[in-house]
Amino acid sequence: MTGPALSAPRTGPGAGEVDLRHHGDAEVRGAALTDLAVNVRAGTPPAWLKAEIAASLDGLAAYPDGRAARRAVAVRHGLPERRVLLTAGAAEAFVLLARAVRARRPVVVHPQFTEPEAALRDAGYTVGRVLLAERDGFRLDPAAVPDDADLVVVGNPTNPTSVLHPAAALASLARPGRTLVVDEAFMDAVPGERESLAGRVGALPGLVVLRSLTKTWGLAGLRIGYVLADEGTVAELERAQPLWPVSSPALVAAEACCAPTALAEAAAAAEEIAADRAHLLARLGAFPEVAVAGPAAGPFVLVRLPGAAAVRAGLRTRGFAVRRGDTFPGLGPEWLRLAVRDRATTDRFVAALADVLGAAPR
Amino acid sequence: MTGPALSAPRTGPGAGEVDLRHHGDAEVRGAALTDLAVNVRAGTPPAWLKAEIAASLDGLAAYPDGRAARRAVAVRHGLPERRVLLTAGAAEAFVLLARAVRARRPVVVHPQFTEPEAALRDAGYTVGRVLLAERDGFRLDPAAVPDDADLVVVGNPTNPTSVLHPAAALASLARPGRTLVVDEAFMDAVPGERESLAGRVGALPGLVVLRSLTKTWGLAGLRIGYVLADEGTVAELERAQPLWPVSSPALVAAEACCAPTALAEAAAAAEEIAADRAHLLARLGAFPEVAVAGPAAGPFVLVRLPGAAAVRAGLRTRGFAVRRGDTFPGLGPEWLRLAVRDRATTDRFVAALADVLGAAPR
Repeated sequence: MTGPALSAPRTGPGAGEVDLRHHGDAEVRGAALTDLAVNVRAGTPPAWLKAEIAASLDGLAAYPDGRAARRAVAVRHGLPERRVLLTAGAAEAFVLLARAVRARRPVVVHPQFTEPEAALRDAGYTVGRVLLAERDGFRLDPAAVPDDADLVVVGNPTNPTSVLHPAAALASLARPGRTLVVDEAFMDAVPGERESLAGRVGALPGLVVLRSLTKTWGLAGLRIGYVLADEGTVAELERAQPLWPVSSPALVAAEACCAPTALAEAAAAAEEIAADRAHLLARLGAFPEVAVAGPAAGPFVLVRLPGAAAVRAGLRTRGFAVRRGDTFPGLGPEWLRLAVRDRATTDRFVAALADVLGAAPR
Repeated sequence: MTGPALSAPRTGPGAGEVDLRHHGDAEVRGAALTDLAVNVRAGTPPAWLKAEIAASLDGLAAYPDGRAARRAVAVRHGLPERRVLLTAGAAEAFVLLARAVRARRPVVVHPQFTEPEAALRDAGYTVGRVLLAERDGFRLDPAAVPDDADLVVVGNPTNPTSVLHPAAALASLARPGRTLVVDEAFMDAVPGERESLAGRVGALPGLVVLRSLTKTWGLAGLRIGYVLADEGTVAELERAQPLWPVSSPALVAAEACCAPTALAEAAAAAEEIAADRAHLLARLGAFPEVAVAGPAAGPFVLVRLPGAAAVRAGLRTRGFAVRRGDTFPGLGPEWLRLAVRDRATTDRFVAALADVLGAAPR
């Protein structure tokens, strides 16, 4: 049931290798910084959601019952319940996939969130990489994925590049005998969720879509996400899960976030993020030394600038945390990832950046 | 890193086999029954604990940071932090052990909680069983454990027999080259936690102790427990965990439950359970057809009586859920497990039992 009996190199910061287990939360821990390092929507969770979660605490003595949440997610995506699996965040989903999906040649499209590769390596796989390049705008060329790759992992929109791949390009990667994992953890921050493949699960062969409720809803601490896949894959992943894998408060949150009013709120937030991102990009445009990857479509932007490490340090002393880019395979020390924040925060950030760069923005 | 490349039979209700995945929560789901089926302390979580958990909801947007909780658990057991691993309930710990511990001949001492065997089988192991017998009072004879067993799992006090094995008997099973897993999920319900091996982790070779905060504190819905083991084993298990495995509210609860006032409350609850159990046993003693396993030391008792399935059904129609015993390897259809409740509930239950058995208690 599990994968190969290969040697299992631990995915840590090996010599000459990036640390796949570095994440944005390490950049803000224990420091009173304005956080542009973690891609969680500011001002979340909303009060109504916090109230629903708080109300669930009265039932904590009972074991979790995931049925209502599963039903709600299924209805939200127009899928049968058997194509839905709730997980303790997308992070658990990557471990389950690495454990339960049989593959001989897994390939991860980089730069992207590093946990899929880390989980595959911890499960004993040797992982191939397809590296997207800045000169191509970090766009996916489906022809770059090896024909014999039987497990392909790609993010959409991609963390950290913020690039949104066309659904058709991703769909062209699906084929019998291949598991195609599309990490849509940030798709609900894209207006209209255009380019999502969620609705095609079960129809496109081998398609697995991952979703998170962590970013838009501010539930990183609660651990909640879900997998959409064909019935057989869902059953395989479920078998690899521990008993009672998702807590009752997380289940209540999942159900609540699938309600029509919540979906409308998320849609409005996505429009707001797009406007805030346009503002951030306009302000960054005033710095000739700052190049932005894109077009950016997520709630964060990836920028390249000389001396990024020193700039990041300078920003910290001025009260701002940003995400280093050099721990993402395919990116170098000149990259930083910036979360999209409201205009006032962006303006304060840009002023600090100008200060660090030793020049007023032009 | 993972176990054997054996075939992986799915632990479901196969032909002629008990359903290892049946648990007490299935007996109370969706029904308005007085619950003697699930071993969670009644009236939990206490208000002060619920308040601490509720307060943590303000920080849900941040990723979980398990350091303070780990430190608190380490201090509570007088162990270095590196011998502690927080898990999403004991259920996750069993999956991690099955994944991360290398074994050639795993053996589970039955009757006991079925998840350890289920997790081992799902990981591809063929699992040996040591069956304890009623005629021996379900007491462990260390000589019954095969010498070449390199992974031994035993519960203390044992669910469902409620038997508390002497620490010395369990310690005699420890040896180099063998992982000895002692599931102490109910140990905090035993006055003085006598017979616990928690403090000897790191000293006794291969000793792994599992603890739960679910039962005493009414946190079954929150998923929180921990593993105590030597540094190397903790590191191996941690590698098999997903990123951010335990939610922030669960971490807050773990820390709170290790505070001196909480430990005093648990100790008082353990004394109360012992008194309530004595009352239940006295009342059951009035039914000559009911045999009790024991001496019972946990917050539940295991009973044998003729026509147990029909009795269980009769109790349901009278508003009481009890746990069937026949899904525990080594027990037959004549067994039931009863949670210890307060005297008034026990008296109501015993009246219903008398009614079902067609006779007033003598």
